[in-house]
Amino acid sequence: MRILTFAALPLLAIAAAAPAQERQKMSPSQIVAAAPTEAWVEIPANDILILGLEDDRTVYFQLAPHAAPQHVQNIRALADSEYWEGASVYRVQDNFVAQFGLRDIKRDLPEGVIAQPEAEYVFSGEGLDMRRLGYPDPYSLMAGFSGGWPVALYEDGTASLTHCYGTLGVGRELSPSTGDGTELYVIIGQAPRHLDRNIAIVGRAIEGIEHLSSLPRGTNGPLGMYAQDQVATPIVSYTMASTMPEEIRPRFEYLSEKSEAFAAYVDRWANRYDQFYEVSAGGMALCHAPVPVRRVKG
Amino acid sequence: MRILTFAALPLLAIAAAAPAQERQKMSPSQIVAAAPTEAWVEIPANDILILGLEDDRTVYFQLAPHAAPQHVQNIRALADSEYWEGASVYRVQDNFVAQFGLRDIKRDLPEGVIAQPEAEYVFSGEGLDMRRLGYPDPYSLMAGFSGGWPVALYEDGTASLTHCYGTLGVGRELSPSTGDGTELYVIIGQAPRHLDRNIAIVGRAIEGIEHLSSLPRGTNGPLGMYAQDQVATPIVSYTMASTMPEEIRPRFEYLSEKSEAFAAYVDRWANRYDQFYEVSAGGMALCHAPVPVRRVKG
Repeated sequence: MRILTFAALPLLAIAAAAPAQERQKMSPSQIVAAAPTEAWVEIPANDILILGLEDDRTVYFQLAPHAAPQHVQNIRALADSEYWEGASVYRVQDNFVAQFGLRDIKRDLPEGVIAQPEAEYVFSGEGLDMRRLGYPDPYSLMAGFSGGWPVALYEDGTASLTHCYGTLGVGRELSPSTGDGTELYVIIGQAPRHLDRNIAIVGRAIEGIEHLSSLPRGTNGPLGMYAQDQVATPIVSYTMASTMPEEIRPRFEYLSEKSEAFAAYVDRWANRYDQFYEVSAGGMALCHAPVPVRRVKG
Repeated sequence: MRILTFAALPLLAIAAAAPAQERQKMSPSQIVAAAPTEAWVEIPANDILILGLEDDRTVYFQLAPHAAPQHVQNIRALADSEYWEGASVYRVQDNFVAQFGLRDIKRDLPEGVIAQPEAEYVFSGEGLDMRRLGYPDPYSLMAGFSGGWPVALYEDGTASLTHCYGTLGVGRELSPSTGDGTELYVIIGQAPRHLDRNIAIVGRAIEGIEHLSSLPRGTNGPLGMYAQDQVATPIVSYTMASTMPEEIRPRFEYLSEKSEAFAAYVDRWANRYDQFYEVSAGGMALCHAPVPVRRVKG
């Protein structure tokens, strides 16, 4: 298992735009804004799912085929089919999840969808190329970032993506169900990391999550299901970016955890020096610092 | 400093309603539902602030006079005055805060309000009667629960309340401003614990936070300030429960951290045994388990 620490990285190989003493006073978002072009990695169009809600509200997701290949295959196939016609966001539980899909409509799975995918809750942590968070993670042996994703390593040698704000996961019934990807949820509150390793994480929101997190909470019981007198938010379109003409595709890139800018960004969340702060925390949780994602410029 | 651990507490002094082996399979919310009457502590009416929004949306807050006495004195005085007439929720930043107050209206502070309170960001940790969380907290030396609040202890012997989902804090300018309590914010996302010890925490939402967390996000810049074409949500009433006739006062109680039920509740968040779970996390963050609060029955 190869673990990259801050110290092990060639910190000056990629020079950030601002000199060191100025960076000391920068906020995390200023550090991201000053990150050089080389620090950004484009997200493949085949990993971008676009969900359209009424009133021109659009939510963009990055899928994680390396973590849950069968589930992501299903979601791509569902997005390319008519399966989700009539789908809606029918569950919004405060400080927990927004969930969408067909709810009670029964429909045959389209071609290419695996009805019972493998339980892709963990993957091998062997040889994982990871930047360590550098602070204790109460949910795992060690936490950090790998390939643009927050990850956790466990004592049994497995690893997983983690439930942070914006994480996209697959709703499922009790085991042996692993969920087929037809019903998906997005985290809209405090990181519910007890779900890690118990559910297939398939991606994360990279733009527009506020259109889900600001929806009215469901009133039919504590799970936030919409009651009969509540209007579930219709999903009016669902598209893989790869199926759009290249010239109009939305394009995104993430800040590589191998960059100096990323190291400074994470460090600054834990150690604030900008004017507002009197005391630095000196540490932080994995989900405190979302991996920066932005539109490709130009 | 006296630290109560799970083991140090007389675990069976207060008997929970369900026998031990059944509790093993209960979820955190089932454990709370089964907690005996003696495990609950009523919140004083003088600590309950009630905020009314349009359309009968009401948010209830518990204030924390032990942590920030001068700031809480201010808030009580403001709530008893006409200062907040015309106030609104004018800032909603996704995964961060909803903020309310007068925004740009200038008005003299009413009698009893301290214009520049002490910086009540920490208090002494000496002798703090605390139930330890029992898992590492990356933001402090040690975290736990005391008097119904999540707390953190630091290496310098100080302690503080912590920024979790629902925490109520005092907006302030740069130091030496400590904020006067006229502008308040509520956390509506992942716990921004880097704010701990840098701001006066004065309470937490105990009911109705969904009326704030589901508000439209502000579009005037990254801080979530409402743009000119956005209608800020008017605050139509603000009341201390203690000023209401006793027979119509809302009454709340919290689950004491000294109870066996609380210990089981926290333990169950970290160690799920109910049917859905295949693996238990074996640990958790302080803000993962909100202190249970409910209406007084009857």
